[in-house]
Amino acid sequence: MTATTPVLILNGPNLNTLGTRNPEVYGTQTLADVEASCRKRAAALGLEVEFVQSNHEGELVERIQQARERNRAIIINAGAYTHTSVAIHDALEYAELPVVEVHISNVYRRESFRHHSFISPQAAAVIAGAGTLGYEFALEYLANNH
Amino acid sequence: MTATTPVLILNGPNLNTLGTRNPEVYGTQTLADVEASCRKRAAALGLEVEFVQSNHEGELVERIQQARERNRAIIINAGAYTHTSVAIHDALEYAELPVVEVHISNVYRRESFRHHSFISPQAAAVIAGAGTLGYEFALEYLANNH
Amino acid sequence: MTATTPVLILNGPNLNTLGTRNPEVYGTQTLADVEASCRKRAAALGLEVEFVQSNHEGELVERIQQARERNRAIIINAGAYTHTSVAIHDALEYAELPVVEVHISNVYRRESFRHHSFISPQAAAVIAGAGTLGYEFALEYLANNH
Amino acid sequence: MTATTPVLILNGPNLNTLGTRNPEVYGTQTLADVEASCRKRAAALGLEVEFVQSNHEGELVERIQQARERNRAIIINAGAYTHTSVAIHDALEYAELPVVEVHISNVYRRESFRHHSFISPQAAAVIAGAGTLGYEFALEYLANNH
Amino acid sequence: MTATTPVLILNGPNLNTLGTRNPEVYGTQTLADVEASCRKRAAALGLEVEFVQSNHEGELVERIQQARERNRAIIINAGAYTHTSVAIHDALEYAELPVVEVHISNVYRRESFRHHSFISPQAAAVIAGAGTLGYEFALEYLANNH
Amino acid sequence: MTATTPVLILNGPNLNTLGTRNPEVYGTQTLADVEASCRKRAAALGLEVEFVQSNHEGELVERIQQARERNRAIIINAGAYTHTSVAIHDALEYAELPVVEVHISNVYRRESFRHHSFISPQAAAVIAGAGTLGYEFALEYLANNH
Amino acid sequence: MTATTPVLILNGPNLNTLGTRNPEVYGTQTLADVEASCRKRAAALGLEVEFVQSNHEGELVERIQQARERNRAIIINAGAYTHTSVAIHDALEYAELPVVEVHISNVYRRESFRHHSFISPQAAAVIAGAGTLGYEFALEYLANNH
Amino acid sequence: MTATTPVLILNGPNLNTLGTRNPEVYGTQTLADVEASCRKRAAALGLEVEFVQSNHEGELVERIQQARERNRAIIINAGAYTHTSVAIHDALEYAELPVVEVHISNVYRRESFRHHSFISPQAAAVIAGAGTLGYEFALEYLANNH
Amino acid sequence: MTATTPVLILNGPNLNTLGTRNPEVYGTQTLADVEASCRKRAAALGLEVEFVQSNHEGELVERIQQARERNRAIIINAGAYTHTSVAIHDALEYAELPVVEVHISNVYRRESFRHHSFISPQAAAVIAGAGTLGYEFALEYLANNH
Amino acid sequence: MTATTPVLILNGPNLNTLGTRNPEVYGTQTLADVEASCRKRAAALGLEVEFVQSNHEGELVERIQQARERNRAIIINAGAYTHTSVAIHDALEYAELPVVEVHISNVYRRESFRHHSFISPQAAAVIAGAGTLGYEFALEYLANNH
Amino acid sequence: MTATTPVLILNGPNLNTLGTRNPEVYGTQTLADVEASCRKRAAALGLEVEFVQSNHEGELVERIQQARERNRAIIINAGAYTHTSVAIHDALEYAELPVVEVHISNVYRRESFRHHSFISPQAAAVIAGAGTLGYEFALEYLANNH
Amino acid sequence: MTATTPVLILNGPNLNTLGTRNPEVYGTQTLADVEASCRKRAAALGLEVEFVQSNHEGELVERIQQARERNRAIIINAGAYTHTSVAIHDALEYAELPVVEVHISNVYRRESFRHHSFISPQAAAVIAGAGTLGYEFALEYLANNH
Repeated sequence: MTATTPVLILNGPNLNTLGTRNPEVYGTQTLADVEASCRKRAAALGLEVEFVQSNHEGELVERIQQARERNRAIIINAGAYTHTSVAIHDALEYAELPVVEVHISNVYRRESFRHHSFISPQAAAVIAGAGTLGYEFALEYLANNH
Repeated sequence: MTATTPVLILNGPNLNTLGTRNPEVYGTQTLADVEASCRKRAAALGLEVEFVQSNHEGELVERIQQARERNRAIIINAGAYTHTSVAIHDALEYAELPVVEVHISNVYRRESFRHHSFISPQAAAVIAGAGTLGYEFALEYLANNH
Repeated sequence: MTATTPVLILNGPNLNTLGTRNPEVYGTQTLADVEASCRKRAAALGLEVEFVQSNHEGELVERIQQARERNRAIIINAGAYTHTSVAIHDALEYAELPVVEVHISNVYRRESFRHHSFISPQAAAVIAGAGTLGYEFALEYLANNH
Repeated sequence: MTATTPVLILNGPNLNTLGTRNPEVYGTQTLADVEASCRKRAAALGLEVEFVQSNHEGELVERIQQARERNRAIIINAGAYTHTSVAIHDALEYAELPVVEVHISNVYRRESFRHHSFISPQAAAVIAGAGTLGYEFALEYLANNH
Repeated sequence: MTATTPVLILNGPNLNTLGTRNPEVYGTQTLADVEASCRKRAAALGLEVEFVQSNHEGELVERIQQARERNRAIIINAGAYTHTSVAIHDALEYAELPVVEVHISNVYRRESFRHHSFISPQAAAVIAGAGTLGYEFALEYLANNH
Repeated sequence: MTATTPVLILNGPNLNTLGTRNPEVYGTQTLADVEASCRKRAAALGLEVEFVQSNHEGELVERIQQARERNRAIIINAGAYTHTSVAIHDALEYAELPVVEVHISNVYRRESFRHHSFISPQAAAVIAGAGTLGYEFALEYLANNH
Repeated sequence: MTATTPVLILNGPNLNTLGTRNPEVYGTQTLADVEASCRKRAAALGLEVEFVQSNHEGELVERIQQARERNRAIIINAGAYTHTSVAIHDALEYAELPVVEVHISNVYRRESFRHHSFISPQAAAVIAGAGTLGYEFALEYLANNH
Repeated sequence: MTATTPVLILNGPNLNTLGTRNPEVYGTQTLADVEASCRKRAAALGLEVEFVQSNHEGELVERIQQARERNRAIIINAGAYTHTSVAIHDALEYAELPVVEVHISNVYRRESFRHHSFISPQAAAVIAGAGTLGYEFALEYLANNH
Repeated sequence: MTATTPVLILNGPNLNTLGTRNPEVYGTQTLADVEASCRKRAAALGLEVEFVQSNHEGELVERIQQARERNRAIIINAGAYTHTSVAIHDALEYAELPVVEVHISNVYRRESFRHHSFISPQAAAVIAGAGTLGYEFALEYLANNH
Repeated sequence: MTATTPVLILNGPNLNTLGTRNPEVYGTQTLADVEASCRKRAAALGLEVEFVQSNHEGELVERIQQARERNRAIIINAGAYTHTSVAIHDALEYAELPVVEVHISNVYRRESFRHHSFISPQAAAVIAGAGTLGYEFALEYLANNH
Repeated sequence: MTATTPVLILNGPNLNTLGTRNPEVYGTQTLADVEASCRKRAAALGLEVEFVQSNHEGELVERIQQARERNRAIIINAGAYTHTSVAIHDALEYAELPVVEVHISNVYRRESFRHHSFISPQAAAVIAGAGTLGYEFALEYLANNH
Repeated sequence: MTATTPVLILNGPNLNTLGTRNPEVYGTQTLADVEASCRKRAAALGLEVEFVQSNHEGELVERIQQARERNRAIIINAGAYTHTSVAIHDALEYAELPVVEVHISNVYRRESFRHHSFISPQAAAVIAGAGTLGYEFALEYLANNH
């Protein structure tokens, strides 16, 4: 791992609709806005980032597998797969990297099926409800701890 | 939305095997037969339809996302993903369209894991066990209500 | 069973208040309106109907028992007894007729005590949330299948 | 609603046995005694009352339906139906009147099947264990709040 | 209580269909056959019997209330109400008589909703699956114990 | 199976203490008394009986296995093993004989761990709470049905 | 206990905010208003009262312990500790006094964690949702029963 | 609320032992270190802070009540009370301020009794497992959103 | 830790009422009697003891925190907090001392809410139902093992 | 019962392996060592003991039955049968003797299936985790209380 | 089906990482090694094999659908989808072929979410924890039984 | 352990009936056939075997205890005790040998009480549904791994 090994920022299903979907819950920032903010904060922190979105569980699994060699850490907002995907859980275990779980909304006060996460047991930290700032906090956390 | 904006009829995993799989539960009509019946009934009701099947959760999610702009309503038989997919639930919420949930068999008297649906909380109506006629009822319901 | 053996359409508790009760859930049609629509659709399908409402579990049980000899099929909206009546479940089993379960609202997105039905295990088809059109779909389903 | 529109006091199954049944739980007052006390307290509060008992769920449902036009409020001790009747729950919702739920004994320290009530979600107030005085408190509550 | 105070034999919903309903579960004897067998066995045991059937929960409740004065014991096959009626439970408590619970089929190996009984906590004995002989055993039990 | 193939009456743990243990629950008859009553009733019914008691689950399993060849039916009061022994359940399945489950007390109103039985799914009939008469009813049931 | 031994009226956490907190649930009366109403009603009933509020579970426990010698009865609105405090349950058991549990709102139709009470098993009566009148009813109940 | 109205940073039971307790879970920073970091970050963000710790549920409740008038927002690490205190939940509701819930460790991968929080339903954001940086993220979140 | 570092004996809520509260469960010894017995047994075993009681969860937490430096072991009867206090659980974890959990009554045969203990996972030994002798056994256990 | 009626010390399955099995949980003392310690302590207390081990549930049941006449009390470490044996529960009920339940390890912090005991409802006292000293405490408890 | 119709060996998500992921659980063999062993064993047994891996649920579903015509049996290690995929369950039902479920590790002693399998109800045999030998046993089983 | 230390193959309750019991589930091979196949396969693998069956839980426990010294590994089909015996679980823990759990049928698709195993947490591998071949696979697994 060299100084420029990037952090992988991985976004799951429906996050490509950010800014349009349910704005009173998710805000009006698009995913491109989030990427821009992340790149800016990362630069300030001396970090490189890769920013990826996919609606496909299998693609997310494979991107996480590749991270084992290609990335220094993973920031993951797995969207709906947070609550249902054992496969992502297992891929994160395989990656053996620091993981930060991010949710834009506070999932703990939404429907009860959003209260359980298969990501959390693999994550160092969990940030929920801080909006898109949550991604930036994840970057700062990684810059300070890993 | 113009007069010809079509209704999306979306079919999930294993529905491509219709007519062959377990005929005493699902009948002998193929999915092509269902499409033909739907097109005929839609024409009688003055509706356009798009008819799609996919075994991939991610593809279903993306087709639902596109429906927000391209379709007037969604008829969805999500097959097995009905019971496991929070991602489809979230995509339907994003689409902000009338949704009718269709099941060919009466899922409420099959295995208990088929009694819960992540589609129902997003659906205006649910039709189960009416065989492939259920799709036609969904069209008539939409023609009368949306 | 002769050609004129009627379909029994049975309505349970509080359905006599239809049109007044909670109109944003149940709509403004009265039960008399529903009966009229059913008779019209039945005529078009070549079916006779008997249309009954009762708030008494015992009466519903007895009317279903009689259906065994007097009717060709049962369309039942058992209202609140849907969720609590084993006696109606048993009467339907006794009747040995095709059964369609109808709910005006989509019970699967209301209170959790409305998610379980003692009718569904005895029903060929379940139609919920299609408003009073659901009764008509039930008639068409029976005309095509039984 | 005029000044003399009465409060409906409705009593469910087995309350006709009051005074004889299990006196160390329910006391020795008969239902006629309760009616007399209620009429006396109501008079003092300037209220009219109708006092009804039935062992039949369907009759209770129908009397509640009529209350929508005939009564200003409902005081209900639904007895055993408290714990099992969705139909009464729905009738109370239809009535759109202030409801006070009364139990003579403290149901919360009896068998666990008496801890859940289908009445409570429709009630403004719940009074349990105050003996037959509970009816009088219900009247005073209604006189002060509705 | 005199020597001729009769035993009340009470039958709940759908037992009027005995002999026709699901004969491989319930046998081919009608309820009139059961009554005849009961009267014969009772005579041999020196007991009088009253034999009643109702599909109405409220009527069963009231007949049990009257038994307190009119009968020496109650044999009850509450049918489907066994599993749902707190009101019958409470009426039996009020009656303060020996109670024997009878089921024609072995309810403990049927659907799980038939495994719980609100009658059992009020019953001295429970006899299930012995067919219509169960009623006769109940009579013999009462003749020997009460 | 010849006319003299006996019925096996099998008694489980602690039934050797009958008459001494908790007499207000189990009565004062000893197991020898029960055997005597059974032999008398069996004789009247033209049946032979074998009467066995064991506190050892393995012995009960083996005696049931032997019954397949040696007995025409099994009456079993498995005592505490009723609630815990899958092995006895499996042995009864192997025996392929009519089985009647007997309990001296009404187990359905005692501790909740006595409400589930591994015997019931293998039994034709279940008799509980009729005291030691329950064994005699089991014999009469077998004489009439098998 | 002399004629002037007072009733203890005990208020738990956050009740000092009454009148300000969530007025559409709790109303606009302050706790001082409640005390004034209680003193007035108590005077009319010939009762003395002590009126206490604390946010500290330990203080509430100790005040209840002292009540054993100092008070004739306890009216308790334990606020949030209702649902979590076994220590208050035990103190009430120790006090050996008549207890009335009061809640200003109808807790049975709020969040499910408010449906269970550790106070109810120690209370003679429970009054919920009658607003601050509930305290007065508690006083009248005690005046008539203890 | 003026520009200098401070943010309240509230710490619950056992957080006074920070730096000593279980350092591989909680790290080696003391609570004084956390306070210093918070003050530094707050200054950079233009915020005032008040920093409080208590092991007493009642004191935490009262400090939150006062925040309604004295603070602009609350950052709360309620420690063990997170999982058991309805009283703190209610106090936060009363405060009507933006709330950020902070946990030093990732509670979602520790004992199951730490997975439920009574704070989360009152919190805008939840940050867990980011160590003492979590407090700083909470400050930045508040500076940007409230 | 020197030879005279004392064992802390900590008593939770309502134990100050020992000897008066429910004597058939807890006996007639007062807490002072227990302290005297403990001092006597400790002397015989060559141990010093500190003996403390508090009804306040926060005080118990703080006394346990201090024990880390001041005591060689903790004997704790946390009373009702046993079943509800995660904060005491966490303080005991912090203390890193041998812990013996004592209950005067056999909590495992009382109400089900007394069957779970947050103390047990932190305790070396648990002694319940041995009356006040349990404290003495705890001392002897500590003298022999730590 | 004479002065020399012995206490029965009964050991269940796998306790014959004591000293070899999992020594960091159970220690290195053999069951013979435990017997020796027990005999020594019993002598000091003026008690006789019988010391028995069996891996067979039926033998344990029978030895407990005999204790009714032969022993003054029972100390039982039922090993794995603690968690599964209703038969031992019933035998202890039959014995009508003081019972002390002993576990060498603190079962309450091991696997969850070891948290429930069928012995506890029959035991006066429960001692867990005190190692083999637990047996001696049981003897002292019995010497002082029975 | 001809003599050379191959067995399909299907591997689910993350099995492409075999040999690298968590070697103390999964061993050091790669998936290519497994394929080689399978081909060798199959040859010895006279079987052809197809060996496939995919991280995509939809692809696994489709490959199983094709097996209906192309394969004689299916050996499936569905990895994480074992526990979450109803779609694979349904595809296996459609395939109507003998199925053997293989897991490299003993899933029954890992996290509880790995104890339930949607594959098992469709499988003839289940082999877990035998490492990569499990695949070979599956082949031998199929060679002997289908 | 020498080269000829045998593998213990242990069979639980009702396996002595193999070949007769429920042949469509268990096949027609007798236990003697299984022993012969095992001895043949073992010989080919260079292993010695001891083959034992018992219907007695205590005997199985004791035979497992002896295995610690006498055997190199254990293959166990514990039959019905699989689901109920903590004692066998504990004996296996004591034995400290490699364990393979075998079931002739696929227990995971039979009654739900067969889905949990107390053997699995002690087993290296689990083989279910492969018929009597499962024993041979267990031998091969042991030959290759231990």
